[in-house]
Amino acid sequence: MHLPAHGANTQHVYEALGMEAPATIIDFSVNTNPLGTPASIQACWQDWLQAVYDYPDPHYTELKQQIATKEKVESKSLLPGNGAAELITLIARFLHSKNVLIAQPAFSEYETACRVEDCNISYYQLKPPAFTLDKEVLHKKLQAADAVFFCNPNNPTGIAFDQHVMNWLIEACEEAKTLLILDEAFYDFVSPPATAIQKASNSPYLLVLRSLTKMYHIAGLRLGYLVGHPEVVEQIGKRQPHWALNGIALKAGVSCLLEQEHVKDTTNFITKERDRVFHFLQRSDYIHSASAVNFYLLKDPAAASQESLYYFLLEKGLVLRHTYNFPGLEGNWLRAAVKKEAENNQLMEALVQWKKEE
Amino acid sequence: MHLPAHGANTQHVYEALGMEAPATIIDFSVNTNPLGTPASIQACWQDWLQAVYDYPDPHYTELKQQIATKEKVESKSLLPGNGAAELITLIARFLHSKNVLIAQPAFSEYETACRVEDCNISYYQLKPPAFTLDKEVLHKKLQAADAVFFCNPNNPTGIAFDQHVMNWLIEACEEAKTLLILDEAFYDFVSPPATAIQKASNSPYLLVLRSLTKMYHIAGLRLGYLVGHPEVVEQIGKRQPHWALNGIALKAGVSCLLEQEHVKDTTNFITKERDRVFHFLQRSDYIHSASAVNFYLLKDPAAASQESLYYFLLEKGLVLRHTYNFPGLEGNWLRAAVKKEAENNQLMEALVQWKKEE
Repeated sequence: MHLPAHGANTQHVYEALGMEAPATIIDFSVNTNPLGTPASIQACWQDWLQAVYDYPDPHYTELKQQIATKEKVESKSLLPGNGAAELITLIARFLHSKNVLIAQPAFSEYETACRVEDCNISYYQLKPPAFTLDKEVLHKKLQAADAVFFCNPNNPTGIAFDQHVMNWLIEACEEAKTLLILDEAFYDFVSPPATAIQKASNSPYLLVLRSLTKMYHIAGLRLGYLVGHPEVVEQIGKRQPHWALNGIALKAGVSCLLEQEHVKDTTNFITKERDRVFHFLQRSDYIHSASAVNFYLLKDPAAASQESLYYFLLEKGLVLRHTYNFPGLEGNWLRAAVKKEAENNQLMEALVQWKKEE
Repeated sequence: MHLPAHGANTQHVYEALGMEAPATIIDFSVNTNPLGTPASIQACWQDWLQAVYDYPDPHYTELKQQIATKEKVESKSLLPGNGAAELITLIARFLHSKNVLIAQPAFSEYETACRVEDCNISYYQLKPPAFTLDKEVLHKKLQAADAVFFCNPNNPTGIAFDQHVMNWLIEACEEAKTLLILDEAFYDFVSPPATAIQKASNSPYLLVLRSLTKMYHIAGLRLGYLVGHPEVVEQIGKRQPHWALNGIALKAGVSCLLEQEHVKDTTNFITKERDRVFHFLQRSDYIHSASAVNFYLLKDPAAASQESLYYFLLEKGLVLRHTYNFPGLEGNWLRAAVKKEAENNQLMEALVQWKKEE
């Protein structure tokens, strides 16, 4: 793999490839909300300046209360984090030198964090093109694992697993005494959303990981949370630095969670736009993953490699996410975000042109 | 110790003590810059809204370049952190199960972080009232330690050690192959400032810890950095979460470091105000530490305990820092920040009244 590892760093991509960046770039590699932040962020921004000066509440009291109310869990089941990435690091520390299974393809941070903690890593591979789950194979692998990372809806495929499958997985992990770390970073893009958060708050074998940066488009502020059994959460949280969440993230978190209309508007919009793009892809002889969220995998089955398509789109200023660093995909797909209508149109036009020129 | 552990959380103090908080509270327990942030923070605030939406640069390139230029060290010697507190946690992780010496009194986070990492902790005690360093005793203790935490200027005393003493300590640690973690969080309040940052970038036995939240009054954003030998810095940094620094902190850090006039104004102001308060304390029969920075220890030598004085001041809305959780002080002193003139006047008036009523 010689392509740069990236996510939401378009300038870096062009630089690393020695390409001149076009004047206008559309970043299809970032998978935050195309409708942007809730209006309250802009409206409150000036008031939040005070939060720059003061030490943030080290107990995150207000944020925790609000999450607890929304999710109907107890505050002691919650651990807010400096982004889901910090929580993954803390979980990896908790799993130090343990046997960790990763369901792939998946967010690369699971493996990076677990490697640093000398975990013994093995993989369960969701098989393309449908990326379905083979219960028999997974069940066997779970027996040898102390913990398993599973992302639902999956990143990078966007596929949301059926609730029966998820319930089976939760029970299989409990039976095997394997800690299931269920990453629900994109759960609220699904319409209607499904979650295992209630179960997590009561089970020592289930953790649910959430991110607020995707739906609320606040990636710069770093905000996520973990839900689990209070005793497990306490063990994981004791290694979190003091004042890990900055004061602006605490303000924004509280504010965003009140904006559930924005979530509804977003899922409605995403569903409509995704359907439109998928219809186009199907009638234009592209293959896509059966995504239920705001991004999807795509490929041109007629192309010898997707890399040429990746470069073709880069030259037009359309930056998709290559998949060389998603094991099990090995560059055979490209990941694209569902963006605004005009932006999706530009991608579709380019894909038409690619088919013509190919 | 029944008083609440605190720092910059005045509401919590009154609540924990079951006291009604007066209408006006002055927080002498927080030790950030009384002149506030540099003007650019307010001026740029609206522009920084964009940084909420985008993922922060995970390599902190611009911030690192600016620190490197200012401090005349190489970028690879630097590790920015989500506040100095995060860096202390990462250092503690690096020191897992090692023998750690802490020069006391000191910031309580050193011990908290090292305890979680199963370090074997011992102490070297700076003896009140002068809090000087006994080379012979410390030298002996260094031989058995893998690492030592030393804060210069010291928090909570505010005392800046002589450069000869610091050079002796650095050499003694190098000779004993003991990693010296030198916390310089308040170094820039000293006029003129002294630092070991140059030595740190070349030595495997010296780390310098810096905070930007005190001088630039941006505690809510969380921003600090570590300087050390590139190989040591790499080892410590590999456990830092991805995107550990939020986008607003990155903007503010770059902006603050350009405002060196603000630093000069601050040290001039602090020197003048501290002198004024110290003259008052001396002629009013109070004892104070020989602080060189923006906070100091004080006590009434005539009082049976300083706790009554602490409560007396609390009732007037003047929240000092008690010292029950600073080992070696055990509540025998109170820590106060050098605040603005009118605020310092209020403290001095209250101290006059205390002497009258006592």
